[in-house]
Amino acid sequence: MQGQLDSMDKRAPLFVDEPDDTKTEILKATFDALAEHGYANLTIDRISQHFSKSEGLVFYHYDGKDDVLLDLLNYLLSRFREVGMPVSDDGDPETRLRSLFDQVIPEPDEQQIRDYETVLTELRMRAAQDEAFQECFNQSQDVFRETIREILQDGIESGDFREMDPELVTNFLVTLVSGRTFERVTTGISRPIQSELDNYIKYRLLADAEDNV
Amino acid sequence: MQGQLDSMDKRAPLFVDEPDDTKTEILKATFDALAEHGYANLTIDRISQHFSKSEGLVFYHYDGKDDVLLDLLNYLLSRFREVGMPVSDDGDPETRLRSLFDQVIPEPDEQQIRDYETVLTELRMRAAQDEAFQECFNQSQDVFRETIREILQDGIESGDFREMDPELVTNFLVTLVSGRTFERVTTGISRPIQSELDNYIKYRLLADAEDNV
Repeated sequence: MQGQLDSMDKRAPLFVDEPDDTKTEILKATFDALAEHGYANLTIDRISQHFSKSEGLVFYHYDGKDDVLLDLLNYLLSRFREVGMPVSDDGDPETRLRSLFDQVIPEPDEQQIRDYETVLTELRMRAAQDEAFQECFNQSQDVFRETIREILQDGIESGDFREMDPELVTNFLVTLVSGRTFERVTTGISRPIQSELDNYIKYRLLADAEDNV
Repeated sequence: MQGQLDSMDKRAPLFVDEPDDTKTEILKATFDALAEHGYANLTIDRISQHFSKSEGLVFYHYDGKDDVLLDLLNYLLSRFREVGMPVSDDGDPETRLRSLFDQVIPEPDEQQIRDYETVLTELRMRAAQDEAFQECFNQSQDVFRETIREILQDGIESGDFREMDPELVTNFLVTLVSGRTFERVTTGISRPIQSELDNYIKYRLLADAEDNV
């Protein structure tokens, strides 16, 4: 959904198996409880059921569920920043763009990825009601948008891509990534979009589209 | 998000101003309360604040908030069926496809449309946790998907569109519509995608793409 966030789980573990500090252990428990129950049915009690220590420790560290969820979101974003955007500086713009979206749109429908997408979508729905969440997500999305825009700009300058407005194409691509996660989480069905995205890149973005047909 | 649902508000009022039966009045109050507070913070008490009669009547008619929300979703879907898909049978496939998406993707950022999108997105997030909601949305989406697929099929047969897999292009288009609503609701920003969708249709779908450049 946030693009860079989407692909995290494939590339690096979100949590070490046995976190050695209490706060990280609480965040891991929160992640698991959120994947299981969703935001609306999440309680500190349910978080504690995934936590090996006393429920009192959760209350000691956090004021309530929104407080721990915002910390979880910030934790996920900082893990992302450590790992970096899944894009290389090598290769022509077409290769860089395709490889970015190969990373960002994982096709396999594994439980671990589904949990991760559910957690992100639940956290992101908080952004509809809570400005602190919205600000975090929007900052994170700006990084993803900037990465796409740079590749597009490079491709236009090198002549690999057609003349276009990189901002509008970025909107289109980011919307597609968001929609895919939202669709998977809410319909329970994983419908492939990767090959049609390839076609969009080939026919719409590449300057020599017709040569490739 | 559900395509056909998205455009409803523009084409027909969801509720008459002063519903004359209690249940519809409760559903209107629920709609307003859900737009204001979101699912997680919705209570029967908050629904009652938008309702001119006694709170007891809400409890008389419904078992709890999920019960009234599922009824609200079914009400919105039945209003949609009354109004029908925003597509005409006239015109060539390209015109029909463009006119469908002109309806489904409203650009204006009015409060009324934002409220409607928020309500739909909140209801749809219930589908991630509750099968009854998921079934309603998936049935509704099937109608939207079938409408798109038929237009694509007609266009392939008439030679207006390239050879393609209508199923994969439908996935792509539905994902885009879902993503747009989710983006608007969660980022608070309305980024245009209409002109790039036009480009997708022109370069990727139309058989004589290069003639149009």
